Amino acid sequence: MSILIVGSVALDTVETPTGRAEEVLGGAATYASVAASFFHRVNMVAAVGEDFDQGHVEYLQGLGIDTTGLVTYPGKTFRWHGKYLPNMQDRETLDTQLNVFEKFDPVLPQHYRQSELVFLANIHPALQIQVAEQVESTKFIACDTMNLWIDTARDELVSLLPRLDMLLLNDEEARMLSGHFNLLRAARAILQMGVKQVIIKRGEHGATLVTEDSVFISPAFPLDEVVDPTGAGDCFAGGFMGELARSEYIDALSIRKAMVYGSVMASYNVESFSLARLKEINMDQIEARYELFKNLTSFY
Amino acid sequence: MSILIVGSVALDTVETPTGRAEEVLGGAATYASVAASFFHRVNMVAAVGEDFDQGHVEYLQGLGIDTTGLVTYPGKTFRWHGKYLPNMQDRETLDTQLNVFEKFDPVLPQHYRQSELVFLANIHPALQIQVAEQVESTKFIACDTMNLWIDTARDELVSLLPRLDMLLLNDEEARMLSGHFNLLRAARAILQMGVKQVIIKRGEHGATLVTEDSVFISPAFPLDEVVDPTGAGDCFAGGFMGELARSEYIDALSIRKAMVYGSVMASYNVESFSLARLKEINMDQIEARYELFKNLTSFY
Repeated sequence: MSILIVGSVALDTVETPTGRAEEVLGGAATYASVAASFFHRVNMVAAVGEDFDQGHVEYLQGLGIDTTGLVTYPGKTFRWHGKYLPNMQDRETLDTQLNVFEKFDPVLPQHYRQSELVFLANIHPALQIQVAEQVESTKFIACDTMNLWIDTARDELVSLLPRLDMLLLNDEEARMLSGHFNLLRAARAILQMGVKQVIIKRGEHGATLVTEDSVFISPAFPLDEVVDPTGAGDCFAGGFMGELARSEYIDALSIRKAMVYGSVMASYNVESFSLARLKEINMDQIEARYELFKNLTSFY
Repeated sequence: MSILIVGSVALDTVETPTGRAEEVLGGAATYASVAASFFHRVNMVAAVGEDFDQGHVEYLQGLGIDTTGLVTYPGKTFRWHGKYLPNMQDRETLDTQLNVFEKFDPVLPQHYRQSELVFLANIHPALQIQVAEQVESTKFIACDTMNLWIDTARDELVSLLPRLDMLLLNDEEARMLSGHFNLLRAARAILQMGVKQVIIKRGEHGATLVTEDSVFISPAFPLDEVVDPTGAGDCFAGGFMGELARSEYIDALSIRKAMVYGSVMASYNVESFSLARLKEINMDQIEARYELFKNLTSFY
């Protein structure tokens, strides 16, 4: 099954209590596509500026990512500058320069339109709808979002939900969207809005899948050092979509398995700034950590 | 295998955002003993005052708890008054009246001394040591503690650790005791202090077992309403000890299984104030929820 991923490509400046990375490759579509590329070929859609390093494009292409949909717009690439608090979970945004991202108008290349799996990474819901309307034979659409859109583009986001097979969002976003503090209630209220399944991303506490009749908890891999959490949620989504693409069927079990592969990819990603760790690992290491996940929760 | 549980018996006044309970039965030894009593006979050691309702004693005895070690001291029973914040996780203590608990001097009845499983619930480490010195043929000693003792009786607590098979503490306490923010590092540093295994209790995020060569994560059961979290950690410990007592061997697998039964007991307990929910349930319901826990993390 082919995978379409649409979202942002960014140059990130990241500060943590112990380090700093300057204008490194980031963005939701980048992290998700790179994570998914270990499993399957990816069709990527995003916008970059004229200043975007051709080396980054070659890196993505080298992973088997189709960059036909990675369009260069006049102007500069989207930039984000953030700083993590000592808990390495909370962060403050110091600067955002939307640049070309402000004009992003995702038009799918013809050969992308039959993608069977679609991941709408975190962009304005209106653009997510625009992409959803261009795909023709999708079997599964997953979508991420953020507090900003829940606040400023709620109606569009809510109108998108009935088209989705899966909404991914973090705990605070689930509370904001649903109006419920209790996460199980929040997830069930979101299901009532029309999306088939919800994954609540809980960072170092893992991810919880809530469907109409079940709950599944995928733990986060215990790490003795987190270098940079940026992109963890997108790597989770990328690993999730990648594993689904390898699966013969999309069913309850393959979705759970895909979540664990998503957790594997997120756990590797946070071991370095930007994509440095993902540049080092191979599929054998991914499978090895997947086996460790089995042991992590096994009790019978 | 017989179980000895030593700790506090209290009359709790608990405020939550939606309710309040006045002078209800509580205390670490109470919660742990009641939870364990579903699985096995318990030898309980604690102090109460002359004002303690004989009905409570009869309730405990009715559960098969041996109350020979539940001694009445001159004066009033220990009282705690706390208030939960809207997140139902953090709480502030509004009032503590130690009363008889100030003079608590745990002396084990002769027939308690051969208890094979011992749970030292949260009391001063000096008293925990005093109990550990009175038991004769223990196979497994587990111990809980709190921030107050880490702060004020650190040397005694640290001297107790090499006697222990298991230390249970929450995430903040693990950070405080170890000096590490990262929980895996914290747990490993605590293992270095001589305890064989560590369980970090993470409330609504479950519990993590760290041994020399493994990590196990027992999730918390997803509930759509938490009425009162008081005693959850002690019910976890009680269910854990109870299931261990039913096990033929104490090994890596039986410890994991016992943690899940601990999580089952904690999840039932938070569904009401005081012990109201535990008064309603039976072993069939415990086994049924244990089966749900299997489904909660199963992905292969």
